[in-house]
Amino acid sequence: MNGSCWYECSRGCEYRAPFTGVTYRCRGCDGLLDVAHDLDSLKKRTAGDWKTLFAERAASSEWLYTSGVWGKYEWVYPPVEKENIVSLGEGNTPLLPLARLGEQLGVPDLWIKQCGTNPTGSFKDLGMTVLVSAANQMIATGQPIRALACTSIGDAASSLAAYCAVVGIPAVVFLPRGRVSAAQLAQPVAHGALVVALDTDFDGCMKIVQHVTADGSIYLADSMNSLRIEGQKTVAIELVQQLCWSVPDWIILPSGNLGNVAALGRGFLMMQELGLIDRLPRIACALEENANPLDRSCRSGFSEYEPITAQETLASAVQIGNPVSVERAEKILCAFDGVVEQVGEGELAHVAAQAYGAGFRYYPQAGVALAALLKLRLRGEIGPSERVVVISTEQGGRRTGLTAGYHEQAFDGAQPPPANKIVRLPADTDVVAEWVVQALDQLE
Amino acid sequence: MNGSCWYECSRGCEYRAPFTGVTYRCRGCDGLLDVAHDLDSLKKRTAGDWKTLFAERAASSEWLYTSGVWGKYEWVYPPVEKENIVSLGEGNTPLLPLARLGEQLGVPDLWIKQCGTNPTGSFKDLGMTVLVSAANQMIATGQPIRALACTSIGDAASSLAAYCAVVGIPAVVFLPRGRVSAAQLAQPVAHGALVVALDTDFDGCMKIVQHVTADGSIYLADSMNSLRIEGQKTVAIELVQQLCWSVPDWIILPSGNLGNVAALGRGFLMMQELGLIDRLPRIACALEENANPLDRSCRSGFSEYEPITAQETLASAVQIGNPVSVERAEKILCAFDGVVEQVGEGELAHVAAQAYGAGFRYYPQAGVALAALLKLRLRGEIGPSERVVVISTEQGGRRTGLTAGYHEQAFDGAQPPPANKIVRLPADTDVVAEWVVQALDQLE
Repeated sequence: MNGSCWYECSRGCEYRAPFTGVTYRCRGCDGLLDVAHDLDSLKKRTAGDWKTLFAERAASSEWLYTSGVWGKYEWVYPPVEKENIVSLGEGNTPLLPLARLGEQLGVPDLWIKQCGTNPTGSFKDLGMTVLVSAANQMIATGQPIRALACTSIGDAASSLAAYCAVVGIPAVVFLPRGRVSAAQLAQPVAHGALVVALDTDFDGCMKIVQHVTADGSIYLADSMNSLRIEGQKTVAIELVQQLCWSVPDWIILPSGNLGNVAALGRGFLMMQELGLIDRLPRIACALEENANPLDRSCRSGFSEYEPITAQETLASAVQIGNPVSVERAEKILCAFDGVVEQVGEGELAHVAAQAYGAGFRYYPQAGVALAALLKLRLRGEIGPSERVVVISTEQGGRRTGLTAGYHEQAFDGAQPPPANKIVRLPADTDVVAEWVVQALDQLE
Repeated sequence: MNGSCWYECSRGCEYRAPFTGVTYRCRGCDGLLDVAHDLDSLKKRTAGDWKTLFAERAASSEWLYTSGVWGKYEWVYPPVEKENIVSLGEGNTPLLPLARLGEQLGVPDLWIKQCGTNPTGSFKDLGMTVLVSAANQMIATGQPIRALACTSIGDAASSLAAYCAVVGIPAVVFLPRGRVSAAQLAQPVAHGALVVALDTDFDGCMKIVQHVTADGSIYLADSMNSLRIEGQKTVAIELVQQLCWSVPDWIILPSGNLGNVAALGRGFLMMQELGLIDRLPRIACALEENANPLDRSCRSGFSEYEPITAQETLASAVQIGNPVSVERAEKILCAFDGVVEQVGEGELAHVAAQAYGAGFRYYPQAGVALAALLKLRLRGEIGPSERVVVISTEQGGRRTGLTAGYHEQAFDGAQPPPANKIVRLPADTDVVAEWVVQALDQLE
């Protein structure tokens, strides 16, 4: 593979570092780093040629291009050698029209980008394949990296543990004790990661992992590592490609650590710079009201930020009060005429139940995004004929408390829930047939 | 959409029925039906042209071709009108090389077809999209169908409920009480299906659903309905396409009701008939020893079959003693020089743990297939340089009992399990850093 990239300060300092080193922050101002690409070199291919190439890769039988991330490797992380790439076939996930739900919500041109069908069940895989591949290459070329470590409320831990297991690199994951579901814990444990539950919250875990990885012998796999962002950026390219290279009016995504907002924005800006698109979408960052550190920032035009202590929420993956990518995200929200919308527990539970009833099982985080969409639509920020893409960041089914709880009427939603109960019957054909006919009569 | 197909008796009777009617069995001999295609019409396109067309569809931005099933609609169910298709973007799932696990098992050229990344988390989606689309079209053209019904140990119920919810058709699912995990129950409940738990096993549920659907007002969505098989058949085409149209030496798949064996075989036979491939793979049907109704059949060269009463197994999705597609599957196993391999609980738990340790989370059913692979390799049936594709039929993580149990050492495996424990530490950076270094020292 060819092409070049390097690290630069995300705040715009002069600092640069080669991609071959272990480095996470600017040595001048301590800001986070971004991956910079040699755009002049990339511009040697026309926009049309890039589109054709990306389409050819999607149609290719070469196994590496099963991955939507590596099918765009020149834009992502070109220095990695093919033999060092660690892929599980991430990306290339469906973008689906949600006609029935869209009509219910007053936004008929509604689409969902289902990142939950990624290999380990979440959006995180898009970035983790890049980070683990880069670490694998550093280890192959003699860097003394003993393990990779990250903090997680579930999904990132599963993703890191899986990718590390593919090539046998030790993984260490730090989780806030009692905040991660059993189904989510089962993944990193089974993949053989060192799983450490700490007596603190997510933000507390973030501090500790930064200390543990400070000397470089354990490589930091958190989203403050910009390699994660570079992989996640492909979600923007992929969804525009799936819309025949037309840009939607709005993208709505649920966010916690805000890395996905930064990634989405970077993807669109790169497409614009290289001429593949000629306008940008608006971005709505959907947050849970118990975990909204952007509230003050948003009211001040993204100039005044202050971390908070996040409270418990059903959408446990977004319970973060001091998001590591806040500066990156604020910059993107400014550039994309962005908005921040917060939703309550009842709102997200109700809309999520509605989405499930329309055939989709991507929440609670997607519920936060859908509830935000509904609020933005109701107050006219989003118009009835605008095209909206909601990003669903993880698969449904692992946080079953919400589903089960909802159908036991445990939530105070805006409207009473259309609860559904399991019926137990004897194995008697006549009894069963009679019950089914009566139940269908009631539905009609 | 154009092209034609009809129903014919799977046992070879003269019986034919039009695709527009509600029909499941031959009126002559009561055998199951197959979907027959107008092969002469399909042969008007050359094999090379089909390959090009399928590649173009994979690269297309048209949303319908997000679906690997509908990207091959001429081969699957051509009479359905596009506006009646109910798709969630099923198929086009990754086929990945398993180098590290393959070397551990003595089969370096090992691949996994990960059907667990389908929209509702299982292989069943490939067939359900076809069946629900066909039913949707029948309803649109005035057939008096009130609901769709199926029996399930989990995956089929989730799939039917989701596809029905997309278009608002009522779904009724019958489950054997106490055999389905909470995470699996949550899906059909949340999708608004009528969920009926019956005091019997899977085979008992199958009998009842056939009675309930007998008059045609409730359409049968079980795998005895050949529309399911037609959609599932695309897994064969897709995996060969992903291998650049080269046929692997072996395909190993876990089976319960045996519809997937029939579907896989039909896909290969159709590719051979239309000239896309020139040989067939061998097929190994992997069964759990507590649920192996094919044992006697296999010993007799697939001539003597007798149903059994299946016992409890970790791989609950295959706990079926009287598989509905047994005749179809026996025919395929004869044609593909097939074998049946049964594995025990300890064997499947151990190999599944090994697979998890290599980064894959697709079991317990995939564990049955991998354990069968290991046995076939050890006794020399599969050679060390043969190319083997294992079909993983569902996502991991919903049946967490196995993972958690294994790492609590609850199983008697052939070898003691490499159990992994979660460690709880205080939020103290020095304590954490010291623990991590010691743990990594022990790993080395």
